[in-house]
Amino acid sequence: MATLIVPQSVPSPAEDCEQLRKAFAGWGTNEALIIQILAHRNAAQRNLIRETYAATYGEDLLKELDKELSSDFERVVLLWTLDPAERDAFLANEATKRLTASNWVLMEIACTRSSHELFMVRKAYHARYKRSLEEDVAYHTSGDFCKLLVPLVSSFRYEGDEVNMTLAKSEAKILHEKISDKAYNHEAIIRILTTRSKAQLNATLNHYNNAFGNAINKDLKTDPKDEYLTILRATIKCLTCPEKYFEKVLRLAINRLGTDEWALTRVVATRAEVDMQRIKEAYHKRNSVPLDRAISGDTSGDYENMLLALIGHGNA
Amino acid sequence: MATLIVPQSVPSPAEDCEQLRKAFAGWGTNEALIIQILAHRNAAQRNLIRETYAATYGEDLLKELDKELSSDFERVVLLWTLDPAERDAFLANEATKRLTASNWVLMEIACTRSSHELFMVRKAYHARYKRSLEEDVAYHTSGDFCKLLVPLVSSFRYEGDEVNMTLAKSEAKILHEKISDKAYNHEAIIRILTTRSKAQLNATLNHYNNAFGNAINKDLKTDPKDEYLTILRATIKCLTCPEKYFEKVLRLAINRLGTDEWALTRVVATRAEVDMQRIKEAYHKRNSVPLDRAISGDTSGDYENMLLALIGHGNA
Repeated sequence: MATLIVPQSVPSPAEDCEQLRKAFAGWGTNEALIIQILAHRNAAQRNLIRETYAATYGEDLLKELDKELSSDFERVVLLWTLDPAERDAFLANEATKRLTASNWVLMEIACTRSSHELFMVRKAYHARYKRSLEEDVAYHTSGDFCKLLVPLVSSFRYEGDEVNMTLAKSEAKILHEKISDKAYNHEAIIRILTTRSKAQLNATLNHYNNAFGNAINKDLKTDPKDEYLTILRATIKCLTCPEKYFEKVLRLAINRLGTDEWALTRVVATRAEVDMQRIKEAYHKRNSVPLDRAISGDTSGDYENMLLALIGHGNA
Repeated sequence: MATLIVPQSVPSPAEDCEQLRKAFAGWGTNEALIIQILAHRNAAQRNLIRETYAATYGEDLLKELDKELSSDFERVVLLWTLDPAERDAFLANEATKRLTASNWVLMEIACTRSSHELFMVRKAYHARYKRSLEEDVAYHTSGDFCKLLVPLVSSFRYEGDEVNMTLAKSEAKILHEKISDKAYNHEAIIRILTTRSKAQLNATLNHYNNAFGNAINKDLKTDPKDEYLTILRATIKCLTCPEKYFEKVLRLAINRLGTDEWALTRVVATRAEVDMQRIKEAYHKRNSVPLDRAISGDTSGDYENMLLALIGHGNA
């Protein structure tokens, strides 16, 4: 389901490093060459390139990229080049320092990664920031957001397919009761959403829909301006159908006055190696425009080329 | 600091299995032989013995032990033989099903294991119970206990020595304010205790003591019968000086009408390979009786022999 295209025969990390070195050399930078290499290597290959670059030239490839590139193109290349767990740790740390809107990034990382991946993010966070992820999230958020986000980023959900239907029914009932009482921040709602396995949660929400006549997210839309309700609905979407969640993030990033490059870059860099194919399908279906055309319409230059390479445009 | 004594030359797992098989054979069981083997092998060696036993005889060593042994002796042998992460998962699962007193076991596991060890417990919990640890804890506890225990068992604390003294001072002040207001379940207290690294927490609590004239646990002793305050004090003790915490558990288990074998077995089986030497020192100092003598006075037979072997009595 990834859109990353790795050539059939990949040059050795040493050859890639040599080419990258050339791309940085002299006046001006050869951005096309950087895209040609980095946008077509998987995480393991990129890690090897970084190691080889440091061993060969005694310099950090990321710092070189930082020196040579700028603005949106720089950000997408840097984010992409990072190892996925390191990248998520970086994005999460950034989110703990910014405005409440970036709470979404924390929720997104906590809910759309596998349990093992999320744990690797927490390990990478220790290594890079000398603190724990949950410690920074708890410190920098407050109120209902804190109550929701801290258990989300600390979760290690069971990932098996087993579903307990009795439990699904009883917890659907609890959810419905609390929502009917408008007790949206009730600890039972938070407990169910932050601890149950995705399979179990899915069964519970299906039962909710069957027994009470509405999808839960419809019942959670009583006040479209309430930010907590908005993140609660997004949490449910991330846990049950991440590609629809990401489609919407892209849609909102693109269809507005002034593109939200921050969101566009994040989604492309974090999903190209995971489920971007499904996200593209969802995007096309919902917007009647293919994602690559939408991106071309809203971006330009190296930034556009890098995004298109990552979403598999060349061979699309 | 472990008290486990492993002989200089250890028989092969195959030889150990053969001896164990002999110990189970015929009428009656040779308990002394079981102790002689299992109580003198480390976790890796015990795991190898279990694997070899299953491969050689097609039977699960733990089930065999379960068949052959009984009561307290059975429990200590079974708990000890389990891999530490599996054992903690077992104890934690048992705790989620029992009365509130067993909340202590959950807190103890969450606070006295390293971050990596606690994560291994969560993995073992998935494998064995097809659910997550935090899911069961959240479901089976309520109120303030739930608010404290869920983040404790989900924590993945940073383990470096770095301390931020400015933060230590500001958080000591927060703790003191909330405690002065008797807001013992305030989210700031829970946040600090459940997310900060042990080094950072230690600095904060030292500053608390210096700045406000009392150790925090003294200020948390306003109502000795309050169960939440009791577990809050125990949490702090586990995080800052685990050997004193375990000394007290042993003291209360032994010095009472009818020994609390449940607690005695748990502490010996979980700490023999970790810090039992320090716990023994703390016990002797606090009770003016060596721990082995205290255990001998309160237990008997194979159970006594197994406990004494694990706390290193033979060579003490």
